[in-house]
Amino acid sequence: MKAIRTVAVLVGSLRKDSLNRKLARALAELAPSTLKFEFIEIGDLALYNQDLEPDAPSSWLEFRKRVKAADAVLFVTPEYNRSVPGVLKNAIDVGSRPSVQNAWARKPAAVISVSPGALGAFGANHHLRQSLVSLNVPTMPQPEAYIGGAGDLFDAEGKITKDKTRDLLQQFVNAFDQWVSLQLDASGPSPT
Amino acid sequence: MKAIRTVAVLVGSLRKDSLNRKLARALAELAPSTLKFEFIEIGDLALYNQDLEPDAPSSWLEFRKRVKAADAVLFVTPEYNRSVPGVLKNAIDVGSRPSVQNAWARKPAAVISVSPGALGAFGANHHLRQSLVSLNVPTMPQPEAYIGGAGDLFDAEGKITKDKTRDLLQQFVNAFDQWVSLQLDASGPSPT
Amino acid sequence: MKAIRTVAVLVGSLRKDSLNRKLARALAELAPSTLKFEFIEIGDLALYNQDLEPDAPSSWLEFRKRVKAADAVLFVTPEYNRSVPGVLKNAIDVGSRPSVQNAWARKPAAVISVSPGALGAFGANHHLRQSLVSLNVPTMPQPEAYIGGAGDLFDAEGKITKDKTRDLLQQFVNAFDQWVSLQLDASGPSPT
Amino acid sequence: MKAIRTVAVLVGSLRKDSLNRKLARALAELAPSTLKFEFIEIGDLALYNQDLEPDAPSSWLEFRKRVKAADAVLFVTPEYNRSVPGVLKNAIDVGSRPSVQNAWARKPAAVISVSPGALGAFGANHHLRQSLVSLNVPTMPQPEAYIGGAGDLFDAEGKITKDKTRDLLQQFVNAFDQWVSLQLDASGPSPT
Repeated sequence: MKAIRTVAVLVGSLRKDSLNRKLARALAELAPSTLKFEFIEIGDLALYNQDLEPDAPSSWLEFRKRVKAADAVLFVTPEYNRSVPGVLKNAIDVGSRPSVQNAWARKPAAVISVSPGALGAFGANHHLRQSLVSLNVPTMPQPEAYIGGAGDLFDAEGKITKDKTRDLLQQFVNAFDQWVSLQLDASGPSPT
Repeated sequence: MKAIRTVAVLVGSLRKDSLNRKLARALAELAPSTLKFEFIEIGDLALYNQDLEPDAPSSWLEFRKRVKAADAVLFVTPEYNRSVPGVLKNAIDVGSRPSVQNAWARKPAAVISVSPGALGAFGANHHLRQSLVSLNVPTMPQPEAYIGGAGDLFDAEGKITKDKTRDLLQQFVNAFDQWVSLQLDASGPSPT
Repeated sequence: MKAIRTVAVLVGSLRKDSLNRKLARALAELAPSTLKFEFIEIGDLALYNQDLEPDAPSSWLEFRKRVKAADAVLFVTPEYNRSVPGVLKNAIDVGSRPSVQNAWARKPAAVISVSPGALGAFGANHHLRQSLVSLNVPTMPQPEAYIGGAGDLFDAEGKITKDKTRDLLQQFVNAFDQWVSLQLDASGPSPT
Repeated sequence: MKAIRTVAVLVGSLRKDSLNRKLARALAELAPSTLKFEFIEIGDLALYNQDLEPDAPSSWLEFRKRVKAADAVLFVTPEYNRSVPGVLKNAIDVGSRPSVQNAWARKPAAVISVSPGALGAFGANHHLRQSLVSLNVPTMPQPEAYIGGAGDLFDAEGKITKDKTRDLLQQFVNAFDQWVSLQLDASGPSPT
């Protein structure tokens, strides 16, 4: 029987009605039962400052603990100024320190980027991937998902209104399920 | 007579003894008298959240005001996880909004990146440049400055100990002086 | 009276009916009379190999000569595998050597990227910009131009069929005219 | 017993005495017996032009065939103008087309970058990784390898002279061996 994996979901926008959050929720609904999504909030993390480590903020400690407890990570990110939002990058930085305790290490990940415009937050998507290389995160290459035109993608209940996008998201989350299994099965004893 | 230009200096690390801060101070000492460096702090900026705009934090308003008041901008950045530190990216995001009031627009800029390791924070340097394109910031292309091995670059008074690096920094800040003049002279009435 | 500047135009696709070539021609038609477009072909350049420099291929020598003769450069590029096409990157490499004779140095430039898909070749656009930093090329930041959906952008005569895109291209080429003037006026004797 | 995997090795420089080629050879010597390195030459590939596909150059066909025959791919690349050399990018483009026959798809890969300067060709390394995402190539995240100062790295027989670099390379090729096994074991029937 296939193991159930917990997926830490990080949403790169703090807006209450964020398109990225809606997209993440839609993905959670489409996910196979072997992936269990857990949203981790990043809005209350103090800005990273190494001087604080000896008496690290409890928000940092709690965040690192939650990331470490997850089997895998899903990043859902908007683009701010052609790159990763500072708020999401700060969460990545907080989770990465102290360096010998990098909370992201070896957790299989996927990146999906979302924008109201046409470009689908391509710039944020790939800047984030560059960071994940250094964090030792095996990141799913395909399918890439740059979700543009997200302003009219959801109905009042948050359901995806475009068949083509829903199909891509289904394909994305199914591929992620396989990616997670592949990366985890070989790096340790099989779950039972 | 040449105009005196104020340069907003942003340092991408919050550490008290930050190598980047030392580097920025050393640059300030080397700068020609036509550039007046003003350090703008970024450590107290709330994480960007568009929902807060109607009643924006005073730290945001003050920051935007100070950036707008400057003639030019100098970014001195470490690399966190092969990209711009979240704390610096957050400052960029805060300064960029609301979008019609982008505080960075048309301000000539330069980027210098600093690391204790050999790579000189190359990844942060160029990710930052990508953001500056979207912010309509004419950024000096040369000399590039990736300052590696910064751990033993300063003496107890913060003076640069390596002649080669000091020469590069002098060349950098002189070129920046020319870059600022070039970009500003043509976009408005000449200073007197 | 304003000087007339020659603009070396490099098209990143070798296809005869390339959308990028069509776009470049459309831009040439929209350009103000102060910019004179000269298309430089890149399809016959031998792959760069430093060992050939002592007896460099005539195609390289001719190419470098033509780039050096231009006042400015316009890059019109598709995206191959999320980056600059090898054929265009090879032309850039050929023009950049030997390093003390970098043909691109100090030539004001602009980048426009074109794709049949929605993403407008964003990845190629910004990878190219990273190279231009090292080549000491002051590259126009705004307006950015990522031209997606280019498959149905031209009529049988190569005219732009979408008003919105034509307006963007007009704005782009006008801004480039100003950018070129700004960068050149200050770096040498004024033209008469 | 562990399967033996063939690794297509692509060297991004055409120079006869290329530092990258030397590095690739040194890696081949350090590789465990389960990896069999096969150097694939890229210097005779015609520049990619889609118009040639109906009667594709034999050099393209042979190249694609060889890439497809390999189990995995190792890229050893210098940096030209802060990005991937045109000659290597052209090889990647040739191998990627026609798109439904992308020769790189699903082949586990690693990237190592080499430069005489300090920066270790970081820019080429990560631009290449961005392309590999789109080519559906699972690329090993760690250890990253940016080999700087390569000018005095080899003795007359091409042996690595610095213990620290040799150790990194050993670690790199061992990790690649594991990465290849991991990615291939799960995507098809196990080899015997």
